[in-house]
Amino acid sequence: MPAYPRLAARLDEMRSSAIRDLLTVTARPEIVSLAGGLPDPELVPRDRITEAAQRALQNLDSIQYTETPGWAGLREVVAARESALLDRTVDSNEVLITHGSQQALSLLAQVLLDPGDTVVVEDPGYTGALQVFRSAQARLVGIPVTAEGMDIDALESELVAGARPALVHTVSNFHNPASATLSMLRRARLAELAQRYGFWVIEDDPYGEIWFDNPPPKPVASLSDRVIRLSSASKILAPALRTGWLVAPEHVCKAIELVKQGTDLCGSALNHRMAAELLTDEDWLAAHLDTVRSSYGRRATTLRAALLDRFGDVLAMHPVDGGMFCWASFTDGTDTESLLRAALDIGVAFVPGSAFAVDVNGYGDSLRMCFTTASDEVLMEAVDRLGRAHDSLRD
Amino acid sequence: MPAYPRLAARLDEMRSSAIRDLLTVTARPEIVSLAGGLPDPELVPRDRITEAAQRALQNLDSIQYTETPGWAGLREVVAARESALLDRTVDSNEVLITHGSQQALSLLAQVLLDPGDTVVVEDPGYTGALQVFRSAQARLVGIPVTAEGMDIDALESELVAGARPALVHTVSNFHNPASATLSMLRRARLAELAQRYGFWVIEDDPYGEIWFDNPPPKPVASLSDRVIRLSSASKILAPALRTGWLVAPEHVCKAIELVKQGTDLCGSALNHRMAAELLTDEDWLAAHLDTVRSSYGRRATTLRAALLDRFGDVLAMHPVDGGMFCWASFTDGTDTESLLRAALDIGVAFVPGSAFAVDVNGYGDSLRMCFTTASDEVLMEAVDRLGRAHDSLRD
Repeated sequence: MPAYPRLAARLDEMRSSAIRDLLTVTARPEIVSLAGGLPDPELVPRDRITEAAQRALQNLDSIQYTETPGWAGLREVVAARESALLDRTVDSNEVLITHGSQQALSLLAQVLLDPGDTVVVEDPGYTGALQVFRSAQARLVGIPVTAEGMDIDALESELVAGARPALVHTVSNFHNPASATLSMLRRARLAELAQRYGFWVIEDDPYGEIWFDNPPPKPVASLSDRVIRLSSASKILAPALRTGWLVAPEHVCKAIELVKQGTDLCGSALNHRMAAELLTDEDWLAAHLDTVRSSYGRRATTLRAALLDRFGDVLAMHPVDGGMFCWASFTDGTDTESLLRAALDIGVAFVPGSAFAVDVNGYGDSLRMCFTTASDEVLMEAVDRLGRAHDSLRD
Repeated sequence: MPAYPRLAARLDEMRSSAIRDLLTVTARPEIVSLAGGLPDPELVPRDRITEAAQRALQNLDSIQYTETPGWAGLREVVAARESALLDRTVDSNEVLITHGSQQALSLLAQVLLDPGDTVVVEDPGYTGALQVFRSAQARLVGIPVTAEGMDIDALESELVAGARPALVHTVSNFHNPASATLSMLRRARLAELAQRYGFWVIEDDPYGEIWFDNPPPKPVASLSDRVIRLSSASKILAPALRTGWLVAPEHVCKAIELVKQGTDLCGSALNHRMAAELLTDEDWLAAHLDTVRSSYGRRATTLRAALLDRFGDVLAMHPVDGGMFCWASFTDGTDTESLLRAALDIGVAFVPGSAFAVDVNGYGDSLRMCFTTASDEVLMEAVDRLGRAHDSLRD
């Protein structure tokens, strides 16, 4: 009788996301949590979604299997939106609809990577991407994220020193977790390096539409054809639509389609039709996005002001010009894992920077705070509790 | 500058599903197609689904991200249904909701298989499963499917001869493509062999509820704890819900949950709530299933009668006691790929047996016909055209 060690081995191999494990603890009602990463459900347009569901369900095709690359109508809608963003005509054959952006990352890893390939990631990085690339047995090279996004000098140094990445992953707008946005100058340099060294850039952009005062710079994808763009309806419409998309050269889309066929056959025609209706209702969408932008913007301002007021120079913050997160680093040697233990006792939660570090023990001085789901009062209470937790460490 | 041969290599490696390629041709309106594999959209309860969507959307949680193993409410509903089927209490921790059954196959391959592992499949086999196991670089061993399902004598011979499969995949009820159902005696023997040789059985059961006169025998999973059961809402409710599930020991579910997190984070809380409502509306569901069973049953009877009338002994058919397909083999040496070319000229389509063969050139005498979406008149017209195509080959 054969032994089956592989299942047990895989259980050890795969660490669950640190954030998810933490969220289990922070679900306790007495905890004020800045640890989440969810959009505000009160800002999700349920009435409009209900209308879209009713309308979609009048069509027989909406309940059937659909094409593996996604319902053609939605691919056309995404192609039109991306054409406007990228200043060129994007064909719908360059668009593939995925089961959320996370599926796009997972499919791309299967198509573009072999075990042992080098993948450049941002440090701190989006944990969902780190998990995918680690599972693909890639060799991860972390590049620091500064206030202007990925440090392109550091990337160039790695390339000059001989690194030959198969791909470079960047959350170019309103970074998760580091809240920074890649500057226009850095975008141009990244595009130029992609051409020169022949790597793919994955421009992972779920937050680009959630800007507060000004839209972010043009996508990296508008500067090079070696860029694969990802985005999603999760942050602007509803996570439960599970509708993400990628924009890539047609031959890449074709390869991904073949892998997706084995992965899940196809997405939901119903959800695709609902997303298409909402994305093409331009006046409504503009008003809805205004509401989301101003709500999140106000909360971000409240959180940052409270942090500045309470911590002053002790806490260095990245800019927060959009998105859902505020990233900050203690300048007084505070260890944020220790701080979290104290904070949970006092009733506030956040995610310690180490959860996003590419290497063990990185970003021990930092923390990510999500401001999307809390009122101004709750945000101020959270900062007050954080201050008390910080004080308690020094006693 | 590095070359990137891997993308091109993968494009060659991965053959698109033969059925999907064929369906592109058979979408022409003048073609009567028995080549599909879709449920009848007219039998999908759109009004009831619309109600379920409206009700689900009254809840804030329905539009948010949900738990990676699936919305807890749906897992409980599936656990209750499976408890009734398996004659034991199935805990909801033994249930994981997937993005259709295909995703369950894909996740299981990632968790249970290493490259080079032996996987026993049915021959002819479900192409979606063959594709997943081939992608996982498994060594496939095909076991013939007879009128009573997988030939367990042939499986035992392989095992006695030294084969040590990591898993055995079976579509136990109303097989796709071979229409047969695994007999009770064979189920018991398969369960016993799984215990003795220590392999997993994947009991892939999307059609079990679509029986015509009598329910199928008890699931193999009721006879052994080495069985992982898969099923889905696609064939009984709607494909666009993209809601499948697997029932497996808790430690297997836990391992799959970790892989699923990287694959797509989670499914749709909205779709899970809709499926849960429909599956718990017992009187409505019973009436709905009655309608589907009697409609498909009548069409199957019509198709078989017409085939018998037209071809007599020249076509040997497997029993069709449920499901969506009729499998038949010519006894006069007809090659069904040649027949298909002639049939398309005359205006009828089917899937040649070779599309489902584990080895190249298998089942050249056979064909799969899907009867779900055609009226009696269309089925009779299809058989008439098939007869003329058959005649034309002999001229």
